[in-house]
Amino acid sequence: MLKSSAQKFSRRSACPVACTLDLLGDRWTLLVIRDLVTGKSRYGEFLESPEGIPTNILAERLKRLESAGIITRNTYQENPPRYAYTLSPRGEELKSVLGAVAQWGTRHIAHVKAHPILASYLNR
Amino acid sequence: MLKSSAQKFSRRSACPVACTLDLLGDRWTLLVIRDLVTGKSRYGEFLESPEGIPTNILAERLKRLESAGIITRNTYQENPPRYAYTLSPRGEELKSVLGAVAQWGTRHIAHVKAHPILASYLNR
Repeated sequence: MLKSSAQKFSRRSACPVACTLDLLGDRWTLLVIRDLVTGKSRYGEFLESPEGIPTNILAERLKRLESAGIITRNTYQENPPRYAYTLSPRGEELKSVLGAVAQWGTRHIAHVKAHPILASYLNR
Repeated sequence: MLKSSAQKFSRRSACPVACTLDLLGDRWTLLVIRDLVTGKSRYGEFLESPEGIPTNILAERLKRLESAGIITRNTYQENPPRYAYTLSPRGEELKSVLGAVAQWGTRHIAHVKAHPILASYLNR
């Protein structure tokens, strides 16, 4: 269980939707989760995604997701230090959110194309 | 199908997750959807929700959701004009997103309490 103090954001209410949005409610965070689900793990790989996440936002979101126990960071190179990120079990459970968002977008927004891995979450 | 031009936001990529977040990716929009799902329909009712949505944000989100065909606006009083908002079929389909978000928050954030109607979307 994630204590609200760990969120670094003041809690707006006891609603689980509001509390989750305090953590993930923005245009970028779920895209980092999408990238992790579709096989990316490194800072540079996230930057290469077509949406063009700004470096300061990416760095802040990775820290926030790590502090919320949604991703884990592993060092894959020492000098200079380089990190690989993976979803924790708590992060893996965001696949249902990601799948629902992808499903809605696929059904209701024109000319979208889901990553093949993401597409496997649709229509389930 | 919602054309990207109708979103009033530039499209960042063809990813259905990114396109949906262009529309709904913030801390407030899904709370308005939650309020509609749990029985609220009027501007003043949305303002009463415990998260305290600022009036300018609420007005902008209602316009955006209406322009995206997610909610419909009906006049319930003429002088002065008062409106009631309801979810369109496209908006109703956001229940799966709302349910997934509520489910994740209920499982992973401490001391949350879902509205009884929202709770009925959990564990399905």
